[in-house]
Amino acid sequence: MDAPADQLRVLGAGAVDLITEADLKRKLARQTPLRVKLGIDPTASDIHLGFAVVLRKLRQFQELGHVAVLILGDFTAQVGDPSGRTTTRPPLSAEEVDVHARTYVEQVQRILLPERLEVRRNSEWLTPMGIADVLRLSSRTTVARMLERDDFATRYRDGRPISLSEFLYPLLQGWDSVVVRADVELGGTDQLFNNLMGRTLQEQEGQEGQVVLTLPLLEGLDGVQKMSKSLGNSVGITEPPTEQFGKVMSLPDALMPRYFALATGWDPDRVADVTRRLAAGDLAAVDAKRLLARTIVALYHGHPAAEAAEQEFDRVFRDHAAPSEIPEYRLDTATLPPGPVRLDRLLHDSGLAASNREARRLIQGRGVRRDGEVIEDPELALPAVMLG
Amino acid sequence: MDAPADQLRVLGAGAVDLITEADLKRKLARQTPLRVKLGIDPTASDIHLGFAVVLRKLRQFQELGHVAVLILGDFTAQVGDPSGRTTTRPPLSAEEVDVHARTYVEQVQRILLPERLEVRRNSEWLTPMGIADVLRLSSRTTVARMLERDDFATRYRDGRPISLSEFLYPLLQGWDSVVVRADVELGGTDQLFNNLMGRTLQEQEGQEGQVVLTLPLLEGLDGVQKMSKSLGNSVGITEPPTEQFGKVMSLPDALMPRYFALATGWDPDRVADVTRRLAAGDLAAVDAKRLLARTIVALYHGHPAAEAAEQEFDRVFRDHAAPSEIPEYRLDTATLPPGPVRLDRLLHDSGLAASNREARRLIQGRGVRRDGEVIEDPELALPAVMLG
Repeated sequence: MDAPADQLRVLGAGAVDLITEADLKRKLARQTPLRVKLGIDPTASDIHLGFAVVLRKLRQFQELGHVAVLILGDFTAQVGDPSGRTTTRPPLSAEEVDVHARTYVEQVQRILLPERLEVRRNSEWLTPMGIADVLRLSSRTTVARMLERDDFATRYRDGRPISLSEFLYPLLQGWDSVVVRADVELGGTDQLFNNLMGRTLQEQEGQEGQVVLTLPLLEGLDGVQKMSKSLGNSVGITEPPTEQFGKVMSLPDALMPRYFALATGWDPDRVADVTRRLAAGDLAAVDAKRLLARTIVALYHGHPAAEAAEQEFDRVFRDHAAPSEIPEYRLDTATLPPGPVRLDRLLHDSGLAASNREARRLIQGRGVRRDGEVIEDPELALPAVMLG
Repeated sequence: MDAPADQLRVLGAGAVDLITEADLKRKLARQTPLRVKLGIDPTASDIHLGFAVVLRKLRQFQELGHVAVLILGDFTAQVGDPSGRTTTRPPLSAEEVDVHARTYVEQVQRILLPERLEVRRNSEWLTPMGIADVLRLSSRTTVARMLERDDFATRYRDGRPISLSEFLYPLLQGWDSVVVRADVELGGTDQLFNNLMGRTLQEQEGQEGQVVLTLPLLEGLDGVQKMSKSLGNSVGITEPPTEQFGKVMSLPDALMPRYFALATGWDPDRVADVTRRLAAGDLAAVDAKRLLARTIVALYHGHPAAEAAEQEFDRVFRDHAAPSEIPEYRLDTATLPPGPVRLDRLLHDSGLAASNREARRLIQGRGVRRDGEVIEDPELALPAVMLG
């Protein structure tokens, strides 16, 4: 294995919290593979660039010889967790969770090395827990400690409800660390509190506490909120090349340095160089964005696909030509009623937009044309023709 | 059954909270036996006059044809509950709880009618609960709602720890009401919050919410704190007649009206009459106290025993004669080390006092004599004689 000091430089790069660097140094000095935990809440089925930030850090650990322990929170997802949110997330059914879990495992293999990857489902140890176990676990922490978590504190102060079950969630997630004997846990900055709970529980159980390393949360395409599938501002890592390219091109200019830093997998020197040239005006914003889009698409689909996506983008958006391939969509009267159909509904139903909301955003952003003409009214009703 | 209005007058007498009177009226109007729940936390083995206040109210329900449903919180006692306390009560072992539960059931039969008494242990339905059940139950309430409970609010404000498990307790206790389909729940005023939780959970489950009726908390012999075995200020209902008589005679005068109202089983008119005569000086404090002591002893041991207890009290305390029966106690070197023994320790060890603390209180109250002489030093060391 590489020298601990070299490993520490790579692994600590880009971290927001590292609790503690001394602990990580000590663990690396043993020169044995560390178990690096990452929890995934299978509440949405597409992995996007925001979550890929953490997965890429995990990959760095793997490349240095450590083991990625991926915990699918299939049990906890059925509880509902508000981390970093302002409202309670509704619990999912066991079936929904299962579908998400399967597609997650498929997708992470695009970033992680399968040979040093251990996938566990937390239902394995949480489902058999009885009420006495839950009470024992819940006696390990206090109400005041829970109310220190930022989002809980905010909701409590604002008089917005916090379901008592949500207080149990960080404990269950922390218990995962005890069970898998994690040496390190990765997560976004919104997971800091939960991951420190794991460290505490491990110490209470006589284990060495895990190192907690957090990474920044990537803003979504709107440039404001954290990237999230449910907010319709995300770029999925398995989306087709042209989709990814187009979405990245729609980014607000101001976000480019963030994306170069967090979504390209580049080393920090290269990111600093592009950012500097962009700020100095030596690199035009549009060219920087093309470079960013090409880089991201190449990361998930390879260089040829990235080039093809750029050419297609130019055909449609620069030369205003029709796309080279136009999918057909036939109205299904089982889904849509006969008669005129609202445009936003149609875009959603045909799969061109992930939701009615995203459809309206596309229309308002002048992204939808009919026979070459931009349509601006999201509520436009289009006549449907019966084919027989 | 008696007319609802007559029943309501008897049952509502002495209540602090009655939520709601209209609901109770409506339930009584059906002229069918109501299920009246009372929860007992089997955390101490002696029922005292304080708890008897609630049991006597339950007996009134029985006499009117209703069913007493006594819930032994054998499961919840193993969690620890802080109701009305300022610190966390330590959880008890299953064995301790079982011993307490058995003696409780024996003792309540001195007050309740066995023919309309249903005794249930909440371990019956709580032990089989799994983690999913606990999470579902805990999603029924919010953190803010829990922090409304007086003792939680105080502890949180003062920065004293509240274990998260304590937040689950009121839910489990409330779930008992759902399971036994309680129509009414009785309790001390410190149980108001918990019992209202039961009402809420029942309504969420589509049941009619239980009526919550609370009764005052009786102060202990110190006249300050709520009567509690662990504070050493209690009078047990199964204590011998002379013990009970002597303890009641040691009450601060100011507490007499409270005890007449809450510990005699008298009707309110009779209580008011004695209280008035006492205040007016028509009844001397010492005579009132004898009447109170006689009444309480008679309630639990019958009139002849009460008279005998009074005579014995007079022999010892008025005439300074030795008690008619003097138990012998032999020092056990397995319990006490050989050599001089501290008086307080000796009183406790021989069973003359329930604790070292109570022993010191008895000594400081000039209640302990050796060969007719009052001993005032609780730390007096007495020589032990080896007999063989």
